[in-house]
Amino acid sequence: MSLEPVLTAIDDALPRATDRLLELLRIPSISTDPAYAAECDRAADWLVADLASIGFEASKHATPGRPMVVAHSGGDGPRLLFYGHYDVQPVDPLTLWKRDPFDPAVEETPNGTVIRGRGASDDKGQLMTFVEACRAWKEVHGSLPANITIFFEGEEESGSPSLVPFLKENADLLRADVALICDTGLFDANTPAIVTQLRGLLGEEVVITGPSKDLHSGSYGGIAMNPARVLSRIIADLHDDTGRVTVPGFYDGVPELSNELAAAWDDLNFDAEAFLDAVGLKFPAGEQGRRPLEMIWSRPTCEVNGLSAGYTGDGFKTVLPSEARAKISFRLVGDQDPLAIREAFRAQVRAAIPADCSVEFTSHGASAAGQMTTTHPAFDQARKALSDEWPQAAAFVGAGGSIPVAAYFKTYLDMDAMLIGFGKDDDQIHSPNEKYDLSSFHKGTRSWARILHALSEGAA
Amino acid sequence: MSLEPVLTAIDDALPRATDRLLELLRIPSISTDPAYAAECDRAADWLVADLASIGFEASKHATPGRPMVVAHSGGDGPRLLFYGHYDVQPVDPLTLWKRDPFDPAVEETPNGTVIRGRGASDDKGQLMTFVEACRAWKEVHGSLPANITIFFEGEEESGSPSLVPFLKENADLLRADVALICDTGLFDANTPAIVTQLRGLLGEEVVITGPSKDLHSGSYGGIAMNPARVLSRIIADLHDDTGRVTVPGFYDGVPELSNELAAAWDDLNFDAEAFLDAVGLKFPAGEQGRRPLEMIWSRPTCEVNGLSAGYTGDGFKTVLPSEARAKISFRLVGDQDPLAIREAFRAQVRAAIPADCSVEFTSHGASAAGQMTTTHPAFDQARKALSDEWPQAAAFVGAGGSIPVAAYFKTYLDMDAMLIGFGKDDDQIHSPNEKYDLSSFHKGTRSWARILHALSEGAA
Repeated sequence: MSLEPVLTAIDDALPRATDRLLELLRIPSISTDPAYAAECDRAADWLVADLASIGFEASKHATPGRPMVVAHSGGDGPRLLFYGHYDVQPVDPLTLWKRDPFDPAVEETPNGTVIRGRGASDDKGQLMTFVEACRAWKEVHGSLPANITIFFEGEEESGSPSLVPFLKENADLLRADVALICDTGLFDANTPAIVTQLRGLLGEEVVITGPSKDLHSGSYGGIAMNPARVLSRIIADLHDDTGRVTVPGFYDGVPELSNELAAAWDDLNFDAEAFLDAVGLKFPAGEQGRRPLEMIWSRPTCEVNGLSAGYTGDGFKTVLPSEARAKISFRLVGDQDPLAIREAFRAQVRAAIPADCSVEFTSHGASAAGQMTTTHPAFDQARKALSDEWPQAAAFVGAGGSIPVAAYFKTYLDMDAMLIGFGKDDDQIHSPNEKYDLSSFHKGTRSWARILHALSEGAA
Repeated sequence: MSLEPVLTAIDDALPRATDRLLELLRIPSISTDPAYAAECDRAADWLVADLASIGFEASKHATPGRPMVVAHSGGDGPRLLFYGHYDVQPVDPLTLWKRDPFDPAVEETPNGTVIRGRGASDDKGQLMTFVEACRAWKEVHGSLPANITIFFEGEEESGSPSLVPFLKENADLLRADVALICDTGLFDANTPAIVTQLRGLLGEEVVITGPSKDLHSGSYGGIAMNPARVLSRIIADLHDDTGRVTVPGFYDGVPELSNELAAAWDDLNFDAEAFLDAVGLKFPAGEQGRRPLEMIWSRPTCEVNGLSAGYTGDGFKTVLPSEARAKISFRLVGDQDPLAIREAFRAQVRAAIPADCSVEFTSHGASAAGQMTTTHPAFDQARKALSDEWPQAAAFVGAGGSIPVAAYFKTYLDMDAMLIGFGKDDDQIHSPNEKYDLSSFHKGTRSWARILHALSEGAA
């Protein structure tokens, strides 16, 4: 089956494809907030209907959390599993959005045309690039060049609690020769990337309780234990003066960058200054003596994601808070063991809790880092197909974000995954005013059409 | 004019007095939140009307913030200025209240009858003890035993920004022989107290900004500066290992406790264990080697009153926050200079701000500690009057809370103040489920009737 008419069909269909994406973006499928559970359900239903409309046998699968969508094309060719997630991040602070995050629109900007709205880039716009590529193949040739299973998750932004049980129970539904995951970005505007290493994620919520209720800081200040002070000390002590994390054993299993990969990354000429400048910063603030790309791709981290205690409204309230809360996450690399680090972190916190305070922990996920086997022939086939679409040749890169599903596919389905995506650094994912470049959406769709063609030719 | 019929009138009028207080408590006069400005106005109007109904010439005085209420009785006898505040603390966390904080009620509890609602103890219930005492004197004798000015403020819970300018501009309206302030507590259930030393208060809000927006902690974690981490380090470093505050020069002007006062305080047999046990704590957590009463009355403190950064809702969001905020207050004693400490604190924070972060400060008040001249004869007259009403003799005590108005009266009106109040440690002021014991309200009113009598006899 020839590729060119498929690419032409994609070009012609772009306005209609964009409308479909806007429809999906209007559904506020925030997974971390239980108030939006019904909206997640609605997003899953929308995808089932859309996939059915292009000939997939599609269905929604209930889980203890948000539902999964699984769809099969049937047919011949290599067996591929495509993964994306239909859930999105919360939208606060809402006041910083220039428009309603769930009233998306196509906007002209000085940097080109964008699709603006929560989930435009992470991950609804990305997953629809693959769906639109399939639609075009089907429309032009009446069939797909591969035997495709599409798998959409609805809990990626909230720690994927149902994912592993679902993979275990439904391995037969999902197993394929290779997995395709569209939840990452371009290396830069001209250079597509296939991610071959991913950081893992350990998410912990810490609640330190002191007095049984909020107290008047005049009556009790100086005699009562203040849990906000205790929490601050604990967080301050999580890093040493050189930026290293102090949790005992934290660096066990953290590999040094190979000379080969170091050279390849140096060849990418990563512009750390521009990368930081885009978010109002100037200086790489990670571990001393590390390359900027190491800081975001191959070194582990510890970050405070949220802090709260006492009175946080307007004005002032002289309260001595009863409790102090922190959300803390660790990005993991190499063979770092998330469960061992969780235990070591909790032990370190417990050891710093004074008399008259107590601590409780809530886990928000614990996933190891992922390393792909790039010798699988599909990696080179996909790299060539991407290089045909974009101005620069595709690169094998690392990713700072955590996409644990790649590791799970390896563990539970014995499959390598190719992480290919078209997001850009300025997409503002997880932030107000998220957008996806129309060119990412368009060329992303064309890229998948090419990759499907390349993988089917390679398998033939 | 004889006292006994006044006391009897107070006993008889208790149900009606309680209804009046409930009416005032229904007005949500939260001063720190601009959304409640109109309610503060309404509370001031209510007080003007009530004072006028018992013959005071009462009026509301506009300020740049919440209005002041000033009322004059005219007549003979010693000139007294009575101060209270009609504004109240915010009510969050609302979920911890057992009833609507502004739908107050009289409740029977295992510890006696209480008036439950925001402001019941701090300070509406307290200021109404004086108003009810005046009403009874007027009702029984047709006049008051003193020439009384009543002065109610509406910004006490939000740093009193309009107070000093108002005192300066209206000194002639307010000047008297001695001031009476009702915003403190009993020493214990049986022992009334006259506060003779008060801690000052310095309130500071600190906002540390790093990246220009919230970032994805996967994409930027490890390379971007995290302001929550910076703030935690700053707070952790505000105390040393012995519990002393590290701000340079902080202890300048902090006096050691005199042997005489130390002996008097030891005689009070303060039960620190019970005081802490009531709020779920066991161990005095202030400076090492200090008496518990010193920790709350005569030693300065630094407390975190509020902390916020990043995502604080349900679930988890891997955000690297753009900013981190803290509300921090210092309780001051002796001759500590609030403005010098503010500058030293800000300099210490600025010195800890790394490249790529900036800091902004907002002042929420700066008032020095207060020390009364207890040789004024009114102190002994009031002590005797209180001792007649309560099971135990009245004590001269310190107070941990900051009532800067006492110092302002000295500075701007050249008047000593007697701080006499009937609150109890378990009143939960500034906390959910605030209450005022009906016995505090009743015996407080009787106490003021006795004090007015004693001061007029003393002056005669």
